[in-house]
Amino acid sequence: MEPSHWLQLSRTVRFGDTDAAGVMHFQRLLGWCHEAYEQSLERFGLAAAEVFPTPGSSLAVALPIVHCRADFLRPLVCGDGLAIALKPRRLDPGRFEVGYSFCCNGDSVARGLTCHVAIETTSRRRCPLPAALNRWLEASSLGGVQPL
Amino acid sequence: MEPSHWLQLSRTVRFGDTDAAGVMHFQRLLGWCHEAYEQSLERFGLAAAEVFPTPGSSLAVALPIVHCRADFLRPLVCGDGLAIALKPRRLDPGRFEVGYSFCCNGDSVARGLTCHVAIETTSRRRCPLPAALNRWLEASSLGGVQPL
Amino acid sequence: MEPSHWLQLSRTVRFGDTDAAGVMHFQRLLGWCHEAYEQSLERFGLAAAEVFPTPGSSLAVALPIVHCRADFLRPLVCGDGLAIALKPRRLDPGRFEVGYSFCCNGDSVARGLTCHVAIETTSRRRCPLPAALNRWLEASSLGGVQPL
Amino acid sequence: MEPSHWLQLSRTVRFGDTDAAGVMHFQRLLGWCHEAYEQSLERFGLAAAEVFPTPGSSLAVALPIVHCRADFLRPLVCGDGLAIALKPRRLDPGRFEVGYSFCCNGDSVARGLTCHVAIETTSRRRCPLPAALNRWLEASSLGGVQPL
Repeated sequence: MEPSHWLQLSRTVRFGDTDAAGVMHFQRLLGWCHEAYEQSLERFGLAAAEVFPTPGSSLAVALPIVHCRADFLRPLVCGDGLAIALKPRRLDPGRFEVGYSFCCNGDSVARGLTCHVAIETTSRRRCPLPAALNRWLEASSLGGVQPL
Repeated sequence: MEPSHWLQLSRTVRFGDTDAAGVMHFQRLLGWCHEAYEQSLERFGLAAAEVFPTPGSSLAVALPIVHCRADFLRPLVCGDGLAIALKPRRLDPGRFEVGYSFCCNGDSVARGLTCHVAIETTSRRRCPLPAALNRWLEASSLGGVQPL
Repeated sequence: MEPSHWLQLSRTVRFGDTDAAGVMHFQRLLGWCHEAYEQSLERFGLAAAEVFPTPGSSLAVALPIVHCRADFLRPLVCGDGLAIALKPRRLDPGRFEVGYSFCCNGDSVARGLTCHVAIETTSRRRCPLPAALNRWLEASSLGGVQPL
Repeated sequence: MEPSHWLQLSRTVRFGDTDAAGVMHFQRLLGWCHEAYEQSLERFGLAAAEVFPTPGSSLAVALPIVHCRADFLRPLVCGDGLAIALKPRRLDPGRFEVGYSFCCNGDSVARGLTCHVAIETTSRRRCPLPAALNRWLEASSLGGVQPL
């Protein structure tokens, strides 16, 4: 399976993503980033319940976001089709980031970044990344995905 | 303390509440309803952790919403000030609803309703409402709040 | 093209759709309904700019939601895959509704409804539905889609 | 009027702000930032319609966000009370940023930043900030508000 399968995604700007200026409301971009991260893990083969808390499961490690940012290069309107490229990167044994690049009709329109740390869910102390996340990070760093 | 203290609230329409039609996006109203319900409990004297799940707490009873609805009578724009009147009502020992009436400059502009059931968090079986909720429901049914 | 192509959709519950009770937050369902409505129009062949306001376009008719409601039958967790069936219906020449039925693993888990009226964007007076919407409503009422 | 009147705000974490990890969902922080910015302008004396597009108004200048970021220092739970300090700053005649510092019980819990540019709404070309915004920026840079 090529990394592009789980690192190249797409979505469409919906009406609820817009505000009274007629274009995408800025906060929505970070929602798209997180959904792209979830979809990428899913396509890679990780079940949501392995990474995200669900009732009844007892995950030993949580991966909260400690930093995020976004740049808006062009306005987006309802109906715009977006190509999303993800660039996950391990920063140290307990920390990783995911860069997101959004294109519309071949033009770069926005960029996002989320930084995550691993913590033990009981103590909330920093700990190493779970093995499943490491597999995704390692497989994602190989192959031909262009840097953002 | 008069019921109006916890049943008459206010808020302002914000830019992120609008969509590209220039007016409030319909989904936002149900968010306003739930925040009004939370603010009402808070003003009545119930701490959020007594009613809503928080990490570390172990609530015996959850109060999921099983039905909601809303009617939109007039468009609302960014900056509009809203008066919100709540009308909570017990339906049976394990079920209650809250009606919400939204006014702007004296005109009725929208209505909402949320219906909640009590369930044991472990078994997810129906059970009686928690005593704290009952106090709020009883106190709210007294006194001079106008019906919606 | 079979109606099922534009009336049978799917989506996945994402982490941002949940709340601290561990399950889908109720408001999200109405967001899913509206996105399903948009996706259905798109698959039927209507461009977003024909139906939803975008900067630079000047739509003569808007289709605001005047009523919505939802029923929640079972809790949904992050990662759940949903099948969404739409049932659009014209109520009169200037009004229509869309019913939405959500299934997960073959079980009915939630229902939604949105009611829309046609208004002239300049006067905000009631008017007939646009021809494009009527085509979608008529095509949707034919063929083998099961009632909700 | 002291700058603290429009630069020191407060809000409460609501249930819809949380996710299945039991704590505030990261995207919500940027929503709180924008609402704080709107509330600050309002308290300073600027009507929403002077700054944000509303139907019927024809603003000559729009102020889109071109960059945002946030840092999350501690988890927040439903019911937490937040003190929000704003630090607006003009970067050049057509650009400004607003820093937001969030405290809970005296501890710094999160920071946010939004960067805005002025553009002519018709041409979407860069232009000087509107006079009303400049008044708010100038008044905010005076007086005793602590740097973030």
